[in-house]
Amino acid sequence: MRPRQRPLIIAVIGGSAPTAEEAAAAEAVGGAILICGGRGGVMEAACRGAKSASGLTIGILPGTNRSEANSYVDIPIVTGIGEARNAIITRTAQVVVAIGGSYGTLSEIGFALGFGVPVVGLGTWEVRREGHPPAPIIHTATPEEAAARALALARQKQ
Amino acid sequence: MRPRQRPLIIAVIGGSAPTAEEAAAAEAVGGAILICGGRGGVMEAACRGAKSASGLTIGILPGTNRSEANSYVDIPIVTGIGEARNAIITRTAQVVVAIGGSYGTLSEIGFALGFGVPVVGLGTWEVRREGHPPAPIIHTATPEEAAARALALARQKQ
Amino acid sequence: MRPRQRPLIIAVIGGSAPTAEEAAAAEAVGGAILICGGRGGVMEAACRGAKSASGLTIGILPGTNRSEANSYVDIPIVTGIGEARNAIITRTAQVVVAIGGSYGTLSEIGFALGFGVPVVGLGTWEVRREGHPPAPIIHTATPEEAAARALALARQKQ
Amino acid sequence: MRPRQRPLIIAVIGGSAPTAEEAAAAEAVGGAILICGGRGGVMEAACRGAKSASGLTIGILPGTNRSEANSYVDIPIVTGIGEARNAIITRTAQVVVAIGGSYGTLSEIGFALGFGVPVVGLGTWEVRREGHPPAPIIHTATPEEAAARALALARQKQ
Repeated sequence: MRPRQRPLIIAVIGGSAPTAEEAAAAEAVGGAILICGGRGGVMEAACRGAKSASGLTIGILPGTNRSEANSYVDIPIVTGIGEARNAIITRTAQVVVAIGGSYGTLSEIGFALGFGVPVVGLGTWEVRREGHPPAPIIHTATPEEAAARALALARQKQ
Repeated sequence: MRPRQRPLIIAVIGGSAPTAEEAAAAEAVGGAILICGGRGGVMEAACRGAKSASGLTIGILPGTNRSEANSYVDIPIVTGIGEARNAIITRTAQVVVAIGGSYGTLSEIGFALGFGVPVVGLGTWEVRREGHPPAPIIHTATPEEAAARALALARQKQ
Repeated sequence: MRPRQRPLIIAVIGGSAPTAEEAAAAEAVGGAILICGGRGGVMEAACRGAKSASGLTIGILPGTNRSEANSYVDIPIVTGIGEARNAIITRTAQVVVAIGGSYGTLSEIGFALGFGVPVVGLGTWEVRREGHPPAPIIHTATPEEAAARALALARQKQ
Repeated sequence: MRPRQRPLIIAVIGGSAPTAEEAAAAEAVGGAILICGGRGGVMEAACRGAKSASGLTIGILPGTNRSEANSYVDIPIVTGIGEARNAIITRTAQVVVAIGGSYGTLSEIGFALGFGVPVVGLGTWEVRREGHPPAPIIHTATPEEAAARALALARQKQ
C-alpha cells in the first residue's frame, strides 16, 4: 500500500500558439506523468503525446472551469488563480521542459530555476545577465534529446 | 484517445486531528478520483480508503515540498500557496464531503457553497444566518450515507 | 524614518448585495487603514465610510484589472487569483469585521479563525459543531459596538 | 471624495542580495506609491528611498507573518502564497523597474511582459529567443534614467 517511491512528474511548458515544429516536439516529449497548464498549443500537444504513450496527464488550469482543459487532460485541476498557477506547475515537477514559448513561459523558467527544478529548453528563451554566469537552462537541439535529458534529470531527483 | 467524459473527482475535507470515528468515516468514503489537502488526519484516512478501493488520490499540498504528502497520495500537487489552496480543492471537485473539521474546513465549505459545488457533511459545521434559509449543506448520519449522496451528486454534475 | 509600530489594519468583509442596514453598518465601521475585497456592496460602503473619516483604503481585488475597484479604494491590489484572495485579506488584518455576507464571507470567517485573527460579527453567519464549543465569533448588535470591539482587539494585537 | 484618477504605483523588483551599486540604484528610484516584495536587499533599499521622498510603500509579502516586512514598509500585505505573489506585484503596478536580480526577478519580468506592464531594467536580465525580436525590456544605464523612464511610462498608463 505505502508507495516507496514518488512518481516522476515532468512539466512541459510553452506557448498557446506554437509553430508546427514546436507542437511536434511537445508531442514527442511524453512522460509517465505529465503536468502542464492544461490549455491549447504546446500544452495540448504534450498531453496528446503523453496519452499516446499511455501516460497520465494533469492540467493546472488558470481559470474557474474545467471545460477549459484540452481533450487530452486526464486530471483537470481548476485553480482559479490565473497565471499565478505557473508557480504550481513548476514546483510540482521534478524537471521542466520548455518548448518555444512566450512571456508566460519565461515566468515559469524563472520560477523553476528559483525553486531548483532543472529546466531543459528546446528553442526557448535564452537568459543572461552581464557579468554573471549564464542561467543554467539546458538547451537541446531535438525533441528526442530534450526528452532523454528530462527523464535522466527527473530520475536523479526522485 | 479523446475522453468523452470527464472523470468524477470527489473532495474529502476535514481536520488534521480527527477522532477515530471521523478517520474511519473518511476512509470509508473512497471514490474513483479523490482530491484532498494531502496531509494527515482525515486527509490521510480518505486517501488510504481510496487506495484500498483502487482509486487515484491527488493531494493539493499547501507547502513547498512534496514530502509533506501522506503516504497514500498518488499525485502530490505542490502549490506553495498555503491555505489559499483550499479554493483549488473545492473548485476542482464535483462534490465535497466534509467530515468533522476545524476552521480550515469551514473556509472550504464557504468556498464550495460559493462555487456551487454541493457539500455533503458528516459531523461537520452547521452554519446559518438569522432571517435566512439555512446553508445547503447536506448533513448525513453515516459514512455510507455520505458516500452514496456524494456519488449521486457528482454523477449529476458530470 | 524607521516605523516603530505597525499600522492598525482592519478588514471589513461582507456581501456584494447588502441590505441598506448592512451597508450603513459597514460605512460606520471605518478605521485607520481599511482592507477589503475592493468591490461593491459592503466593501464599497466600508471604503466610503473610511474615506469620510480620512482613513486609507486598500482593495484586494480578485480579478485582473484595477478598474474593478470601487471609487473609494485608494490602493487597488490587483491579485488575479480570484476568491483565493480571501486568504490575503484575512491574513493581513489584525481584526476582521463580518457584516451580513454570503458564502465568500463564510470562507473568510473560516480563514480568519484558522489564522488566529479575531472576528467581530454583525448580522453575519453563526457557526457551530455539535459537541464542540461555539466558534469564537464576537457577535455584536450595532455598528458602533462592532467598531469599538474591532478597534480594541486590533490594538491588543499591535 | 471620489478619486477621479488612480494613483501611480511603481514596482521595484530585484534580489535579496544586491551589490552596493544595485541597492543605491533601488534607493534612488523612489516614487509616489511603491510596491515591492517587502523583504530585504533591493526591496528594502527601494522602500527606504521612497520613504525619504515621502512616498507610500507597500510590501507584498510571500510568507504568513507581517514581521517579515522590512522597516520601511508602510502597508504590509501578508499573502501567504509564497513566490506566486510575484504575479500580484507585477499586475498591480503601472510599470516595473528591475534592478539586478536573480530567478525570482526573472519570473516577475516574465509576468510583467505577459500582462502588458512595461519593464525598465537596470543591470538586470537580458532575454531573447532565436528568430524572434528581443523582449521589450527597456534597458537603462543609471538609476536616474531608470526612474525617469518609469515615471513617464506610468503616467502614460494612468
